[in-house]
Amino acid sequence: MTNKIRKIGILTAGGDCPGLNAVVRAVSKNALRQGIEVIGFKNGFEGLVKNEFIKINDFIASGILTLGGTILGTSNIANPFKYMQEPYGTPENPVDVSNIAIKNFEDNKLDALVTIGGDGTLSMSQQFVEKGIPIVGVPKTIDNDLSATDQTFGFDSALAIATEAVDRIHTTAQSHHRAMIVETMGRYAGWLALRSGIAGGGDIILIPEIPYSEDVIVQTIETRKAKGKNFSIIVVSEGAKNESGEMVIAKTIAGSTDAIRLGGVGQRISQMIECRAGIESRYCILGHVQRGGSPTAYDRLLSTRYGAKALDLIIEGKTKNMVSLQGTQIKDVLIKDAVSKLKLVDPHGQEVHAAVSIGTSFGSKEIG
Amino acid sequence: MTNKIRKIGILTAGGDCPGLNAVVRAVSKNALRQGIEVIGFKNGFEGLVKNEFIKINDFIASGILTLGGTILGTSNIANPFKYMQEPYGTPENPVDVSNIAIKNFEDNKLDALVTIGGDGTLSMSQQFVEKGIPIVGVPKTIDNDLSATDQTFGFDSALAIATEAVDRIHTTAQSHHRAMIVETMGRYAGWLALRSGIAGGGDIILIPEIPYSEDVIVQTIETRKAKGKNFSIIVVSEGAKNESGEMVIAKTIAGSTDAIRLGGVGQRISQMIECRAGIESRYCILGHVQRGGSPTAYDRLLSTRYGAKALDLIIEGKTKNMVSLQGTQIKDVLIKDAVSKLKLVDPHGQEVHAAVSIGTSFGSKEIG
Amino acid sequence: MTNKIRKIGILTAGGDCPGLNAVVRAVSKNALRQGIEVIGFKNGFEGLVKNEFIKINDFIASGILTLGGTILGTSNIANPFKYMQEPYGTPENPVDVSNIAIKNFEDNKLDALVTIGGDGTLSMSQQFVEKGIPIVGVPKTIDNDLSATDQTFGFDSALAIATEAVDRIHTTAQSHHRAMIVETMGRYAGWLALRSGIAGGGDIILIPEIPYSEDVIVQTIETRKAKGKNFSIIVVSEGAKNESGEMVIAKTIAGSTDAIRLGGVGQRISQMIECRAGIESRYCILGHVQRGGSPTAYDRLLSTRYGAKALDLIIEGKTKNMVSLQGTQIKDVLIKDAVSKLKLVDPHGQEVHAAVSIGTSFGSKEIG
Amino acid sequence: MTNKIRKIGILTAGGDCPGLNAVVRAVSKNALRQGIEVIGFKNGFEGLVKNEFIKINDFIASGILTLGGTILGTSNIANPFKYMQEPYGTPENPVDVSNIAIKNFEDNKLDALVTIGGDGTLSMSQQFVEKGIPIVGVPKTIDNDLSATDQTFGFDSALAIATEAVDRIHTTAQSHHRAMIVETMGRYAGWLALRSGIAGGGDIILIPEIPYSEDVIVQTIETRKAKGKNFSIIVVSEGAKNESGEMVIAKTIAGSTDAIRLGGVGQRISQMIECRAGIESRYCILGHVQRGGSPTAYDRLLSTRYGAKALDLIIEGKTKNMVSLQGTQIKDVLIKDAVSKLKLVDPHGQEVHAAVSIGTSFGSKEIG
Repeated sequence: MTNKIRKIGILTAGGDCPGLNAVVRAVSKNALRQGIEVIGFKNGFEGLVKNEFIKINDFIASGILTLGGTILGTSNIANPFKYMQEPYGTPENPVDVSNIAIKNFEDNKLDALVTIGGDGTLSMSQQFVEKGIPIVGVPKTIDNDLSATDQTFGFDSALAIATEAVDRIHTTAQSHHRAMIVETMGRYAGWLALRSGIAGGGDIILIPEIPYSEDVIVQTIETRKAKGKNFSIIVVSEGAKNESGEMVIAKTIAGSTDAIRLGGVGQRISQMIECRAGIESRYCILGHVQRGGSPTAYDRLLSTRYGAKALDLIIEGKTKNMVSLQGTQIKDVLIKDAVSKLKLVDPHGQEVHAAVSIGTSFGSKEIG
Repeated sequence: MTNKIRKIGILTAGGDCPGLNAVVRAVSKNALRQGIEVIGFKNGFEGLVKNEFIKINDFIASGILTLGGTILGTSNIANPFKYMQEPYGTPENPVDVSNIAIKNFEDNKLDALVTIGGDGTLSMSQQFVEKGIPIVGVPKTIDNDLSATDQTFGFDSALAIATEAVDRIHTTAQSHHRAMIVETMGRYAGWLALRSGIAGGGDIILIPEIPYSEDVIVQTIETRKAKGKNFSIIVVSEGAKNESGEMVIAKTIAGSTDAIRLGGVGQRISQMIECRAGIESRYCILGHVQRGGSPTAYDRLLSTRYGAKALDLIIEGKTKNMVSLQGTQIKDVLIKDAVSKLKLVDPHGQEVHAAVSIGTSFGSKEIG
Repeated sequence: MTNKIRKIGILTAGGDCPGLNAVVRAVSKNALRQGIEVIGFKNGFEGLVKNEFIKINDFIASGILTLGGTILGTSNIANPFKYMQEPYGTPENPVDVSNIAIKNFEDNKLDALVTIGGDGTLSMSQQFVEKGIPIVGVPKTIDNDLSATDQTFGFDSALAIATEAVDRIHTTAQSHHRAMIVETMGRYAGWLALRSGIAGGGDIILIPEIPYSEDVIVQTIETRKAKGKNFSIIVVSEGAKNESGEMVIAKTIAGSTDAIRLGGVGQRISQMIECRAGIESRYCILGHVQRGGSPTAYDRLLSTRYGAKALDLIIEGKTKNMVSLQGTQIKDVLIKDAVSKLKLVDPHGQEVHAAVSIGTSFGSKEIG
Repeated sequence: MTNKIRKIGILTAGGDCPGLNAVVRAVSKNALRQGIEVIGFKNGFEGLVKNEFIKINDFIASGILTLGGTILGTSNIANPFKYMQEPYGTPENPVDVSNIAIKNFEDNKLDALVTIGGDGTLSMSQQFVEKGIPIVGVPKTIDNDLSATDQTFGFDSALAIATEAVDRIHTTAQSHHRAMIVETMGRYAGWLALRSGIAGGGDIILIPEIPYSEDVIVQTIETRKAKGKNFSIIVVSEGAKNESGEMVIAKTIAGSTDAIRLGGVGQRISQMIECRAGIESRYCILGHVQRGGSPTAYDRLLSTRYGAKALDLIIEGKTKNMVSLQGTQIKDVLIKDAVSKLKLVDPHGQEVHAAVSIGTSFGSKEIG
């Protein structure tokens, strides 16, 4: 079957994530070794629309395993089905330019496309699959919130960075007798806060899946003080909600000359604690450092296995599929079965249970 | 059922490993929270024989999550069934003092024991189980070679250290146009060399499960040179064997006044390459740095989940069992089904296949 | 002379800083070795006022070299000369309780006090010196802005953390073609932004000592784009000022129920760039992670040398003095000559010149 | 004066060292900004002899700041004055081909050469200076043993790596009650062992400048045991000597089929301790990992300042000179005043004194 594949395309889309280059490398090396040509579209689907690409040879595919970011560039706005960029569309008038993308795919005589991205990228990939384009998807999120795979690459690296930050904050909290808050990424799923909270020994962990009660937070801090522990570490997902379901995402009021900003949940909780628990509090928003830098060994391995497998799937003709980690094996699932299904933390699952059993609070009356 | 458990013991045995303290902490916190007393035996089974222990309270169990080593101490020689230490036995005349250990267990009114260790520790644990002692085992190896669990804690940390070393060696190899050899731990199983080799972009990976041919190694280096790649990275398990099944473990000739030492496999391969491939070569034995230091986020999480679960199992009365990672879940297996079954790298499995598909050599004519 | 010193006190004051424990350890070990008793006051000068302390023995002084934070606790509000805490004073009515502190010093039969802190701590120390208390100061700031020493401990660790963050941000900036802003600590002195900017390869560095022009920033980004470099890294001190001398420190509007916050300079510059340079921009405030965690090798060494020297000075009777790094040697200066003199970045000095000469912009028409 | 300089060459020679690329980048960026052409000779002086070079443009000089190794390649054998490589010489018959090198310098119309290397590189540079070639040297050693500068770049990175290894070994030593030995680089000067020993909290530090007594080592370990500290960390330079002045450098017996190797000093001391102190001992040779990988922030800064200054010196016509760190300033010295003068640890200097004063042993009856 191998002889049918002569040339493939590859692109990276969505937010930056450690391991993107490792996937590009593995796909390309596996292909080049078998005499298959590889071109890399620039800046996600934008390159497919504009037909901007580089030819990937062995020289380009080498030495990028450990490199953060993506040598292909990425975009988290370019959507060929709702294209908002010139010369085709505008943010107000997005247009469907998928036929242009498909024409470029065909003009380049590609046999298949590898798309590396998160849920948005997979959705667009599925739309192209439905229009007949052979695609293999590779799942990527910092948040680890894709349901069709045990883990996405990039998450372990983000976890390492967040955990290191919690470690650093720990010493300051202890020295100053403060409640220190670390706000991690995770708008819908709390994996990053949950796991960095457990790994960093956080006292309170707040995640979107378990609405928090301010009372319980204050009570937890006070109970700790009563035991002689006059500091607390709170790890909070940016998307953590209170009991009423309110989320306090940081955002800037557009057009404001004074750079007025509605603070995020980390800031909100910090102020609440200072007011109600009578203890000094500081917060720290980790932000984009969670997305950058060299991937961990785990992520390099997962990325390499994903990339190598993606090419294998192309050769097997499984080109409506996404690679997926299941236990210790890389398997595949249909892209259509993978999109739009968030993998959330189970409030009654093992990890939350383990955290509760060693005394961690989730700021909730129900859990723990 | 909970009210039956009043007091437990815990011990860490075998070689040092990142995450030991994290397990001790999780077991203890889970127990103390439920009013269960915890004592920690010193230096593995030696403490059980000598009845040397500390009482673990909340103060002792706190702040040790990130700490390398074990606050309880460990021993990799003390075996109550073949005890070689004074005052009972000698290396020449090991004696069975398990009845003393059992008496100490009973005199301390323990309801169960948590043993944290590798295959040797689990074997002894099973022997105690057969004599009626309720035990929960927690699997630990740097080598990840226990078959009854997807992963042992400590391995991810060792992998991170080994991968960082391969990264460092990479730049020197390139700058000097050398063949650089990194020798990792792994006497029987090649997991550490395999995964740090893939994660570090090694060109040649040599593991016990795939006997190597010197010819293939030389040929690989020469093929690379012919392509303009005038350096090579070789990652090798200390237990790698050649085609004749010979292993070249480093050892010192006892009694030698000149400290004569038979070099290990890394040195052997390095010399062979200098002689046969006409390229400068250096080797580096990672050694004990792979065992020490603060655990990675992954290992802290796994250790915490293992420890919390171990106490849960005690309460459930599953005290002939070992905690075990299966996919994303912590489950349990009978200790007797876990011991003495090595988990080896499958030469025809996914990880080797992925490495081969991106051009990695295993120094073998058969593989790749 | 040694026999005159029998007992000393030690305290850590001001903000958390990597290396505090290393100084405490070195002072204590040097003292204990010579039979000198050591007590450590809790939470900075607060412990001296309240007479709260621990006796430091060899056990306590051991194993803390690598530990972030301070085992003694710290406070950055307790000032015995303007004491705002109960039962003596309030924030509205600070009172002078220095006589109580002095009485405690005398009642404990101390021969000298080691105070570890920044400019505020040194100022209070000088006031005590003037009242006859023998003191040796050890200079500590994250900002490196004390003029009487070439370097303060803690700065190298903060620099390492900030530089790592710039590295991480770099890959994201490149992948997304963004202007990424990293806001470091440094309200008055730009050392941290300057050095992490150079070490991280920042394209634009904004520091308090060199007022920035928005025009120059925009122009620099556009010139880079014209050269095909469609991303920029901007490293900015929290205290950076614009040409009119305005500083935009982040602060929260007290009493606001909506957690309204005036954004800091990083946010301000980010918004300005999005508006004026037509390039996506994100910012990241490093915050408290710069203060925590294990010190770098450099800082452990400097802290150890400072601590050992502090005790030597006590024995020599130089107890109006502060240890000071001058070149490669630890010397001493009078505390009164050290306080209230900021060490600022020289806009015409070597480091700025080196940065400019390799193409770095300081956002200024005058410099570079 | 600037208009006289039109084109320069640059080369990196000697062993690999973190920061080489950072120097190449700074020299090149400073030159290119002023319209000066830059060529980089490949593999140290070998490229000058063979006239092998690359033209360095802005693209090549960018993005290499954080990269370990050297993009130019290096050689630690190529000496134009005793050239041992074909087609000119052999190891048995080295020949002087400096006239060829000089002809290449002239044919390329170079105005000056920047040589980055250690003592050997500086010696050759001085020989070329004496033959009329304008050269600026940049001092580089892992060992920090050049006397004409306060610090060489690369040392801080090696120190960080060695210290991290000592940290890791520490936890294992404690857990197993062992004497653990870490052997660092440093054949003649003990800086790396001294500083990583202090920074890592080593109990015994052995360096070439202070001959060690086996008796004192054993005694120190036993004294520690008597105090309840049943482990010891020994940090030893590879060039440490005993009282008789014997050095035990690891080497392989040439031609041996059994890969017989005379162990180094770390192994020797380890065996001695096992025999004489009755305590388990393990050793670890750090080796080449000390040379590789991304430079620390400190080294990137120093390298950048050195590189920028080297080009400044060329423009000033100071082309018999070497850049040199003196206190906080980069100055310059004549290369001839810099070569062949080792900077050794002063056994009676501040750093040894500080270490002794906190209880560190140097294995010597005289010191401490």
